Amino acid sequence: MNCEILAVGTELLLGNTVNTDAADLSQLLAGLGVNVFWHTVVGDNPARLADAVAIARQRADLIVTTGGLGPTYDDLTKNVLAEAFGRKLELHQDEADFLKDWFARNGTSPYTDNNLQQAYLPEGCTVFHNEWGTAPGCAFEADGVHVIMLPGPPRECLPMFRACAAPYIRSLSADVIFSRQIRVFGMGESAIEALFRSEMEHMANPSLATYAKFGEVMLRATAKAATEAEAEALCEPVVEKVKAVLGDKIYGVDVDSLEALCLEIMTGRGMTLSAAESLTGGLIGERFTALPGASAVFRGGAVTYCDEVKAALLGIDPALIAEKGAVSYEVAAAMAQGVRRAVGADVGLSATGLAGPDGDGVHPVGTVFVGLADADTVWVRELHLGSGRVRVRQSAANHAFDMLRRYLQKLPIDTW
Amino acid sequence: MNCEILAVGTELLLGNTVNTDAADLSQLLAGLGVNVFWHTVVGDNPARLADAVAIARQRADLIVTTGGLGPTYDDLTKNVLAEAFGRKLELHQDEADFLKDWFARNGTSPYTDNNLQQAYLPEGCTVFHNEWGTAPGCAFEADGVHVIMLPGPPRECLPMFRACAAPYIRSLSADVIFSRQIRVFGMGESAIEALFRSEMEHMANPSLATYAKFGEVMLRATAKAATEAEAEALCEPVVEKVKAVLGDKIYGVDVDSLEALCLEIMTGRGMTLSAAESLTGGLIGERFTALPGASAVFRGGAVTYCDEVKAALLGIDPALIAEKGAVSYEVAAAMAQGVRRAVGADVGLSATGLAGPDGDGVHPVGTVFVGLADADTVWVRELHLGSGRVRVRQSAANHAFDMLRRYLQKLPIDTW
Repeated sequence: MNCEILAVGTELLLGNTVNTDAADLSQLLAGLGVNVFWHTVVGDNPARLADAVAIARQRADLIVTTGGLGPTYDDLTKNVLAEAFGRKLELHQDEADFLKDWFARNGTSPYTDNNLQQAYLPEGCTVFHNEWGTAPGCAFEADGVHVIMLPGPPRECLPMFRACAAPYIRSLSADVIFSRQIRVFGMGESAIEALFRSEMEHMANPSLATYAKFGEVMLRATAKAATEAEAEALCEPVVEKVKAVLGDKIYGVDVDSLEALCLEIMTGRGMTLSAAESLTGGLIGERFTALPGASAVFRGGAVTYCDEVKAALLGIDPALIAEKGAVSYEVAAAMAQGVRRAVGADVGLSATGLAGPDGDGVHPVGTVFVGLADADTVWVRELHLGSGRVRVRQSAANHAFDMLRRYLQKLPIDTW
Repeated sequence: MNCEILAVGTELLLGNTVNTDAADLSQLLAGLGVNVFWHTVVGDNPARLADAVAIARQRADLIVTTGGLGPTYDDLTKNVLAEAFGRKLELHQDEADFLKDWFARNGTSPYTDNNLQQAYLPEGCTVFHNEWGTAPGCAFEADGVHVIMLPGPPRECLPMFRACAAPYIRSLSADVIFSRQIRVFGMGESAIEALFRSEMEHMANPSLATYAKFGEVMLRATAKAATEAEAEALCEPVVEKVKAVLGDKIYGVDVDSLEALCLEIMTGRGMTLSAAESLTGGLIGERFTALPGASAVFRGGAVTYCDEVKAALLGIDPALIAEKGAVSYEVAAAMAQGVRRAVGADVGLSATGLAGPDGDGVHPVGTVFVGLADADTVWVRELHLGSGRVRVRQSAANHAFDMLRRYLQKLPIDTW
């Protein structure tokens, strides 16, 4: 099945928004055995959108649109696609009721009639209810082409793809696609690629591909077969080889993230967590508490962005900071121990360092110390994470969660 | 001049790389008065690339390609484009000499014959020398279509655009584009659109468009004219009308975000900030400290995800929590006052509430209290932010920053 991802939105053509949906959907579609051969972006212009649809239906078996499903006059995707494929739009009363209820529950903006536009969908389509926003998506087939329409915002588009579009696509093929995601922390993508070049270049079924972000790498083994058991069996030797080569650099298979793995393990063991954050400014707590169920594990922490607050909230001796500096092994250790004690948790995490763009005249930007303390011991990693404020902060948080998962998996903690 | 940006690279279609070039080039092109109407991505496949070029030359006056100029066998952009426009590739000796010299100076990888491929360019083109990598770009005109070819890596593509492509494009056209971004908090996108429908639907120059995210709305007025002053003058009446209608719902014009505005004002006044976060789990601190220069204002705060930590770090009376509940007006007020005192800041922000998916049996999911305290007074907003963990948390943080900007702008704080 050959697919075109067609994004609709003038904000993309103005460069206000980066089309991350296209990349993320491409990964998800590849995992379903779909070949993505084209990405196209057009603005909120019905004539140019209609032309783009005419081109896409000639070359693709599957058109996935993103954007243009909202309540405003420039949300035209449904109208143009419905007309192109000769379908009427009809009111879906369930969705209309949901919208009225949604606005009743949301104090900020009143329900206006144009919101009802979102409940009109092409006749005979499969409705994708939107649990993450207001505009529903949908899917239909016409003239041998499958059309899937998704909202544009990634926080709606991606969960709706997983929950609604992926099962729809799976139902179109007799073949079953099975994939395993092997998650790695502590090795670069090119080093990993060099180890598995033959698997990556010469194998088609199963295939092996890598994806990298902020120092994490994910390897995906994918196979296609008549049954899930057969496809899984095809994947197995590749997964075993990757496991044998990468060892404890692998933090999990088919888990969502380092922090999701830690939450799962700690919930199971009834353990509690805390964090003291300097350069990350709340990011460690934010990422952990973004996970539903985090409140069973995360008790809280301190954002100690200046030295006095390290003393006031965590009881760190100002003399230690004066002697060693706020960006130091010793202060990272004291922060992890201090926050653990202050909030009464089993484990304390800490991060102190320089995210840039300005340095402190002592350490280069990207110098970071990440700590982990339990009742008996404290471990610290000294890191040099390069430049780029976003990258340094996200990488520091990744290291904190990697130390935690290695602690929970009873592996060496300060090596990686 | 109507432009298509045509990116070439299988890594984009696999989702390994996000097409940030398209967004960045679109912004740069808009600044030159060029209408970008299409983004297209195809893989390293000569037939599909040739088809894409055939489509692009029918609809665009300017085709900007990115990627596929390198030395490897799958770098096909020049060959396909040259053939499509009936031009031969010819060796540019200057570029060949540069390449040999570059490899002599850069020890890491040896010069191989395929590197010479990069010095072949379409006959009669304007050569864009690459000071940021090895592969040169170029521009030429054929059959009334201008073609610009740039390398794919952003660290080469964007500086080459600014240094070489922008002057080339300026020489083709006289118009300048100017835009103002009006940022609004506290009104929904559809309600705003209803107020400005005539401006949005019937005006082309200047044009007015809306963009929304997590309860924030941005309106952009854009105009095109022979000079920047004329274009700015065209925008002015629309900006003034929007200001007159929306009043203090507008938090700024041409500012980046609520928190960026707050940081700017507080830096100017030498004020300090702190935050006590329950449901947001560190998000308020994380967003504020994501801004370079935040350390001059943000002293720190507490993530008080469980009740005991509210007492331990902020000195909140456990009896108050027992009586009123952690999700209450009173506890939000005590958190804002407590964190302000604990870290010694001028202003304390707080957020407590239910992000979901689970409720507390008393309040519905989405119930949030956001507080702001200074030395004399405390204000609290009671909010009902609907469902969706990400949305509720981001909206709560937006409200905290909106209260702060209204405090700093001396507007009523607990209304919005």
